Amino acid sequence: MEDSKREPAGILYGVGTGPGDPELLTLKAVRILREADVIGIPSTKKEGCKAWQIAVQAVPEIEKKETLFVSFPMSRDPAVLERAHQEGAMQTAKLLDQGKSIAFLTLGDPSVYSTYCYLQKQIQNMGYGTVMVSGVPSFCAAAARLGISLGEQGEALHILPGSYPLEAGLGFSGTRVLMKSGKQIGAVKERLLAENCSSKMVENCGMPGERVIRRTEDIPEDAGYYSLIIVKDKEKWD
Amino acid sequence: MEDSKREPAGILYGVGTGPGDPELLTLKAVRILREADVIGIPSTKKEGCKAWQIAVQAVPEIEKKETLFVSFPMSRDPAVLERAHQEGAMQTAKLLDQGKSIAFLTLGDPSVYSTYCYLQKQIQNMGYGTVMVSGVPSFCAAAARLGISLGEQGEALHILPGSYPLEAGLGFSGTRVLMKSGKQIGAVKERLLAENCSSKMVENCGMPGERVIRRTEDIPEDAGYYSLIIVKDKEKWD
Repeated sequence: MEDSKREPAGILYGVGTGPGDPELLTLKAVRILREADVIGIPSTKKEGCKAWQIAVQAVPEIEKKETLFVSFPMSRDPAVLERAHQEGAMQTAKLLDQGKSIAFLTLGDPSVYSTYCYLQKQIQNMGYGTVMVSGVPSFCAAAARLGISLGEQGEALHILPGSYPLEAGLGFSGTRVLMKSGKQIGAVKERLLAENCSSKMVENCGMPGERVIRRTEDIPEDAGYYSLIIVKDKEKWD
Repeated sequence: MEDSKREPAGILYGVGTGPGDPELLTLKAVRILREADVIGIPSTKKEGCKAWQIAVQAVPEIEKKETLFVSFPMSRDPAVLERAHQEGAMQTAKLLDQGKSIAFLTLGDPSVYSTYCYLQKQIQNMGYGTVMVSGVPSFCAAAARLGISLGEQGEALHILPGSYPLEAGLGFSGTRVLMKSGKQIGAVKERLLAENCSSKMVENCGMPGERVIRRTEDIPEDAGYYSLIIVKDKEKWD
């Protein structure tokens, strides 16, 4: 088909849903979800997807929209990941070629450790237009839930993903945020206690099953995947 | 007056307005601004206050509400700061005692280097209830404007306030965000060039006068206060 006969391609939007509370969606996220032709879902089905569960509470009409499922496997095998990303990009490009705009859901904010960014990079490389729509990141919502500041003037704030070496991370001065600590929570707690680190934790912030823990000693060994720990020097909590 | 005759005290809300685009207010921020009796403004007047300018575009009816001005001087003198914070807390408490709820505006997110947290601490110590309402922090909006990720799996993300020692900050591995670099932009640019750092900058993100700079060499010497620089290793930008 010649270019001149083509529909103008659709735009891919990466839409942050915030970490849990549907009221933390931005006005812009709500508008883009309402306007989009297709809702992109980073999972194989709606039910298991936190970002979908949040978005559909804020904007129920997305239930009736066309959906695109792009599953990002939790594999460390580069070949498996590469294949999944390419497959996702092909499906996405097919819809964009039909002139459809896609609002691709992403938990929290799309710039903070999101798998959406892998999809965006491939779609950009294929020559399509993309737009990121910011959301509230999980660490801001957790700080709000605890009623604390993440950093006072002059101090650094270090955001550390679950896979970051814990020992190196705890060595930073200032505030340290340990994202998604759930998988190795026992080891993390042990280390925090051994280093005499003062910490607070929020699990499932703004979601069903939310738990707020105000002392390292009280961190539960059964904490789930969406557990976020904030570590500060003792005197900084007061 | 006896306690039993008192109105129940109002609640102090710290409401993040996001960094500039009024569409980045959350649904919750909009609701709290609509419901609040008083709008708290971190300045001596509305006109000079970015947070007010953003909020009033998203929720025009706040124009008609009672206002509370709490000015936080840009002083490093602890006595001056202490006096200003105490004076602000007294004014705030007076309104809360009248049973009024206050939505105190704060640029970006209230947990990220906000002066609101000083006010909140004092109000908490006086025994009043406080609630933080998250907003999109400036670095997330700047990343979205640039269409980039702030951190990929396994990497740390370091948020560094303008007053953080630059040399130490640039020494971190992973992504480094230099907040509010405007005041010493010349020295920052010089250092970034000397260290062969690869960076991008957004000035006044989502506000009038927004500028997007994609190379260290192009950072303008006249960049203003709301300039945010994102530094990554060269190969990480692709």
